[in-house]
Amino acid sequence: MSQVEDESPILPELMRALAPHTGHARIVGITGSPGVGKSTSTNALIGELRRREQRVAVLAVDPSSPFSGGALLGDRIRMGDHVLDPGVFIRSMAARGHLGGLAWTTPQALRVLDAAGFDYVLVETVGVGQSEVEVAGQADSTMVLLAPGMGDGIQAAKAGILEIGDLYVVNKSDREGADKVRRDLRAMLGLAERCDGAWQPPVLKTVASTSEGVADVVDALEEHAAWLRESGELERRRVRRARSEVETLALTTLRRRWGSVDEGDRLDVLAVAVVAGEIDPWSAADELVRAR
Amino acid sequence: MSQVEDESPILPELMRALAPHTGHARIVGITGSPGVGKSTSTNALIGELRRREQRVAVLAVDPSSPFSGGALLGDRIRMGDHVLDPGVFIRSMAARGHLGGLAWTTPQALRVLDAAGFDYVLVETVGVGQSEVEVAGQADSTMVLLAPGMGDGIQAAKAGILEIGDLYVVNKSDREGADKVRRDLRAMLGLAERCDGAWQPPVLKTVASTSEGVADVVDALEEHAAWLRESGELERRRVRRARSEVETLALTTLRRRWGSVDEGDRLDVLAVAVVAGEIDPWSAADELVRAR
Repeated sequence: MSQVEDESPILPELMRALAPHTGHARIVGITGSPGVGKSTSTNALIGELRRREQRVAVLAVDPSSPFSGGALLGDRIRMGDHVLDPGVFIRSMAARGHLGGLAWTTPQALRVLDAAGFDYVLVETVGVGQSEVEVAGQADSTMVLLAPGMGDGIQAAKAGILEIGDLYVVNKSDREGADKVRRDLRAMLGLAERCDGAWQPPVLKTVASTSEGVADVVDALEEHAAWLRESGELERRRVRRARSEVETLALTTLRRRWGSVDEGDRLDVLAVAVVAGEIDPWSAADELVRAR
Repeated sequence: MSQVEDESPILPELMRALAPHTGHARIVGITGSPGVGKSTSTNALIGELRRREQRVAVLAVDPSSPFSGGALLGDRIRMGDHVLDPGVFIRSMAARGHLGGLAWTTPQALRVLDAAGFDYVLVETVGVGQSEVEVAGQADSTMVLLAPGMGDGIQAAKAGILEIGDLYVVNKSDREGADKVRRDLRAMLGLAERCDGAWQPPVLKTVASTSEGVADVVDALEEHAAWLRESGELERRRVRRARSEVETLALTTLRRRWGSVDEGDRLDVLAVAVVAGEIDPWSAADELVRAR
């Protein structure tokens, strides 16, 4: 994991060795606004999954954090119940890299955890906004958490999370307003047109702090996993992810090569010619592509 | 300009024809928070530049707008003084394209206006945030507008505009607090370390609605242009821009090619192999790069 975060030069070799051992883990994305109880829910999920004898890794992704990797003190505390369990691995990852941040590091980190034999990898987004949608793009199943009293109905519609959730969980459902959040959310989800055989995202309720309802969440995750396999959607999602991962790596390789001083910085030579009006940018781009 | 915004297939040919005619125009970026009087200032600048017999184009860039191109009604009204002047061209551009938005279209639009023989191209950002910094990256000189009573000192520091301005203008300087904004800004700029021969950004004041102080702004722009030429910074900035433009075009070309159905979608074939564990993503990226 440190090799991934440090963008180590041995990564290609490492990934080559891991490739045959990947594809087993179920990647579950966990998103939701701050305050809905993401850490508590993750903690409760780990507990339920461990009762079912599943090995669980948690990757807490923070796109805005300047902190380096490792299991941060915060994680240890937040998911303290499982610190000593060898079947649980918890890790924070910050987007401190220079090669494209999370789009680059997250898939490779997931690959490592997958190859390490975990049955479930929970990807929890820390922070808000665009990153949630991005991380959802990395998961097989995405669980969107909500809580009463946060204007979540509107938030949901705004943030586009109605398109990314495979599973909606109203946490803190012992609080006033929980049923209204569920009703509103169901109404909004009902408006979306779905084809025959499409997955209908369930809306569940939990009190993560007491683990109430958490077994139902894991059941729903299992159902979704079965649907993903049977419908062919699992393969489609994974191919889409691999596609974007390979593309990102290829583009990174090329950018490095074009801009490398060792090779005389082709890009600089072309840019000078463009400024002088000797060549247009399209032809320059063509030359770059042809030169590789 | 419509060809640029529509990402027309004839663009490469068009740019090839224009290349020898570029490099004359001075590109001036105009940024500032909403409410500082950007349109009024642009209007006043056009007036002063026309008095000096300069041909002026205005490109109003709105990264958030879904509107299509053309001189929007709003522009015609805002810069109404110059609608009938054949030496003035005003155009709005939205980032509706699919190929990378403003990073892709702005440099090409500037190239067209440059080749068309305008002496000055004013790039005005509509909207806020990151886009301002991006647009500043496209300009030879960047003018940052401020106004009293908007907490601009703090805003300036936050938005990182202290790093992008070649010229600071406190507009609405007939209002209370204008001198304080100037003093604060000067103090903040004074803290930045500058090397010998470096440009010291002036802090000017205007009342754009009456054109007061606007001649001084144009004088300062002329001084900055002279400094850019003499210091070699003009060439450096333009090479940096061309570099990023060529890179963006090359990457776009490659992404299209990799994903094109005509060629059997190499990327999809590789992604399927990655998901099957037959190949790792780095080796797949290598194949993609080698295949071109």
